[in-house]
Amino acid sequence: MKINTALISVYDKKNLKQLLKLLNGLKVNLISSGGTYKKIRKLGFKCQEISNFTGSSEILEGRVKTLHPKIHAGILSKRNNKLHSKQLKKNKYKEIDLVVVNFYPFEETLKKTKNHTKIIENIDIGGPAMARAAAKNYKFVTVISNPNQYNKLIHELKKNNGKTSENFRKQLSLEAFLETGCYDSSVSNYFCRNSNNYFTKKKIFHGNLIENLRYGENPHQKGAIYSSKNEENINQIGGKKLSYNNLNDIYSAILISKSLPNNLGTVIIKHSNPCGVSIDKNKLLSLKNAISCDPVSAYGGIISFNFKINKKIALELNKIFIEVIISKGFEKDAIRILKKKKNLRIIDSKHMNFNNEINTSQIFNSILLQEADIKKFTKSNFKVVSKKQPTKKLFNNLIFAFNVCRFAKSNAIVLAKDNSIIGIGSGQPSRLDSCKIAIDKMRKFQKINYEDEIVAASDAFFPFVDGVETLVQSGVKAIIQPSGSIRDKEIIKFANDTGTILIFSKTRHFKH
Amino acid sequence: MKINTALISVYDKKNLKQLLKLLNGLKVNLISSGGTYKKIRKLGFKCQEISNFTGSSEILEGRVKTLHPKIHAGILSKRNNKLHSKQLKKNKYKEIDLVVVNFYPFEETLKKTKNHTKIIENIDIGGPAMARAAAKNYKFVTVISNPNQYNKLIHELKKNNGKTSENFRKQLSLEAFLETGCYDSSVSNYFCRNSNNYFTKKKIFHGNLIENLRYGENPHQKGAIYSSKNEENINQIGGKKLSYNNLNDIYSAILISKSLPNNLGTVIIKHSNPCGVSIDKNKLLSLKNAISCDPVSAYGGIISFNFKINKKIALELNKIFIEVIISKGFEKDAIRILKKKKNLRIIDSKHMNFNNEINTSQIFNSILLQEADIKKFTKSNFKVVSKKQPTKKLFNNLIFAFNVCRFAKSNAIVLAKDNSIIGIGSGQPSRLDSCKIAIDKMRKFQKINYEDEIVAASDAFFPFVDGVETLVQSGVKAIIQPSGSIRDKEIIKFANDTGTILIFSKTRHFKH
Repeated sequence: MKINTALISVYDKKNLKQLLKLLNGLKVNLISSGGTYKKIRKLGFKCQEISNFTGSSEILEGRVKTLHPKIHAGILSKRNNKLHSKQLKKNKYKEIDLVVVNFYPFEETLKKTKNHTKIIENIDIGGPAMARAAAKNYKFVTVISNPNQYNKLIHELKKNNGKTSENFRKQLSLEAFLETGCYDSSVSNYFCRNSNNYFTKKKIFHGNLIENLRYGENPHQKGAIYSSKNEENINQIGGKKLSYNNLNDIYSAILISKSLPNNLGTVIIKHSNPCGVSIDKNKLLSLKNAISCDPVSAYGGIISFNFKINKKIALELNKIFIEVIISKGFEKDAIRILKKKKNLRIIDSKHMNFNNEINTSQIFNSILLQEADIKKFTKSNFKVVSKKQPTKKLFNNLIFAFNVCRFAKSNAIVLAKDNSIIGIGSGQPSRLDSCKIAIDKMRKFQKINYEDEIVAASDAFFPFVDGVETLVQSGVKAIIQPSGSIRDKEIIKFANDTGTILIFSKTRHFKH
Repeated sequence: MKINTALISVYDKKNLKQLLKLLNGLKVNLISSGGTYKKIRKLGFKCQEISNFTGSSEILEGRVKTLHPKIHAGILSKRNNKLHSKQLKKNKYKEIDLVVVNFYPFEETLKKTKNHTKIIENIDIGGPAMARAAAKNYKFVTVISNPNQYNKLIHELKKNNGKTSENFRKQLSLEAFLETGCYDSSVSNYFCRNSNNYFTKKKIFHGNLIENLRYGENPHQKGAIYSSKNEENINQIGGKKLSYNNLNDIYSAILISKSLPNNLGTVIIKHSNPCGVSIDKNKLLSLKNAISCDPVSAYGGIISFNFKINKKIALELNKIFIEVIISKGFEKDAIRILKKKKNLRIIDSKHMNFNNEINTSQIFNSILLQEADIKKFTKSNFKVVSKKQPTKKLFNNLIFAFNVCRFAKSNAIVLAKDNSIIGIGSGQPSRLDSCKIAIDKMRKFQKINYEDEIVAASDAFFPFVDGVETLVQSGVKAIIQPSGSIRDKEIIKFANDTGTILIFSKTRHFKH
């Protein structure tokens, strides 16, 4: 299709010049409204104002400009349909072959203000209507819905002497519907947040491509990461490109890091499960203890700190092979040392803005949607049900273990000592198996003395006494678990008979 | 806001009568176009045609009817703004207080035809433009974007003497943007499929609420299931309501069932991991073998068959406690027997239409998107690298084990004998640990003889010989694994030294 008439109506006015120059050279008639008209004239090109074109003046402070049959018939008429051509002629309407639009900056407004009226005013009505009309009629009309498409339009027009191919227009049509769909996804998500109503009858999610990844979980699967904001979520400051599995692990790591007391915690992740977690005022000790939980698995893992790392820690990190380091800032010396390892992926989480209210997973045609498990623990969540009472230190250790347990895949059993994890059994169909795996892990890497205050946490209740028995026989002195088994009483009796501390939590923490 | 003028333009004309009756009683002026006008007149109510209202006739076979400043200014004017009122008056425009629309049935058209032109013709332009305009101006205008909202509008108008409250209008505004966003999500997804282009610069997903679930993975998390189609994905024919965790497990089960040779396979799932899989021409044997892999974990699990189950199987199933049964149809006797257990959730997968091309997961502000791991295995995917060659039977057994392994969480090791799984170690940070867990499971529930042809599959390569060594020492005769370790040669040598069959696959199958 040769382009004779173009309608240009853009909020974002950048990069117009080159396109206008080309259109001018191709003798394309330009129609434009309000600010765009002024911009085009200022750049030195001829242009007809929309109000002049339609004969209707712009009203309601710009709310109604382009919603006019002369515009929309010009866009929507089928060029190969005699009736359409006749009706256009009769009404003195004119075919519009190219529509260049972009919309009021709804997302950007959200970032700038919380003023609801201002936000609502930035919902574009006319722009999406034109983009959708042009996209529907892509067989004849070219639609540009984003300034980042100017270059390919220029290329296409130059290549084809002022024409565009149908394939080209079809691709632009897809992109236009993605623009309008994402736009209304943003608007509806704003309304959802505004009314605290996430579980609506319909639900939309959208994302902007951040990066096509080398592949997905495996090399034969394509993969990509999208962001629901218009910005990258992860601030990588060094190392090789992040892989799909890296990203998955990074999110698991950050989730745990965020849940730990601030400025104290180290988390190690392998295959999206924790394999070492420790909190300590002595940051180097917190790192060493996290590694010592399972030094074999820590190899090639992902380490996340919820504090700023210093030279000492960087030197320690350089002794082992890790894939990714996540830290809440880096001291200058630290970053210099870490960057010596060229491949080491380094993530600065200091300015990363996390929002994790709703999680979804999509398989087949279904979307499973749930609130994230981000409930904070306080002591009122827990009730000591054994005769023996925990010291404050032990209670805190139990809560620490229970918190880590919620992030390990179910069924999960976590063993801890002095605010460090020393054994994890996770992802098993039987809770007893998870107990045994956690104990085996502890025995493999820890020197345990009889008097050690080892605690155990379980993400859901023990269906039988056997798991509790196995733990206590292996040296566990205190257990925390959600209640709910018909054998709870039996388990309390066992705890009392063996002098074990037993705490029931109000909440269960399955994770799959 | 008192409603004086309503614009009604609906494709789906059902259930209008009661609403029209009420509006008529409230002396609301009606404006309407084309088919809706005829329908309203036929129902016996007064109504003004849009073309008569605007003075512009409907053109381009209905493509341009409502895209007119008189309509959109009537919708968009701020009632409390003097300039707006003045401009309306000057142009002889009239305020429109209620917009009742629904759109051309794009999704329904997709179901009925593959004719691209017909599909494109069913993209609505005018309807979404009006819905969006009314939704933007919800402070003054009421927007109905779906017939399922008529009842609540009737209720509201009756309650408030022909007025609507701002809260009510705001909720409808949210729902209108959800309608338009989902609509363009459908359109863009159609274009994506049509051009086989899933990894676009922007990406939209949408779903229709199927059900608010009792809760998410845990009782303190709200949960819901949405379908990207307008229909339920799961055909439940009996038992208690499905929980979030049930659904998650059901999808895992179906994924494996679909990958097995047709009409032969039984799959048992617990905590979204397989804990028993078997294929056999003798269906009852396939069930018994699947259970015998881990009868303890099968308790309370989910069983999925990729065949139609009969009376014998139903009787066998009634002996054990299971949460969900999924079957490709049920013989009459079978369903009668199973329904005796009132709580047992029964799913008929016979007519379930699965589409699993793309998987997503959403956390923080990121969406991780990947092609599903649905690559089919053929013998050309595999290469025997040991001196010892497998028999055809053993080769098939290895492929069976490798296929199940891809569905267990990484690191995963699966042991099999005679097309039944006899040990699974999954979700571990160390491959050696997974080997040990799989072996422990096998030893616990199987009687193993030295001459048994036990095979092992690994979802990724062995980094060291130790895992292979452990397997062979426990009676494994043949191993299948992706290659890629720097110690591959060492492993081949170990296989040859011990007379073990070793097969390398071209593909890795991590799953997290």
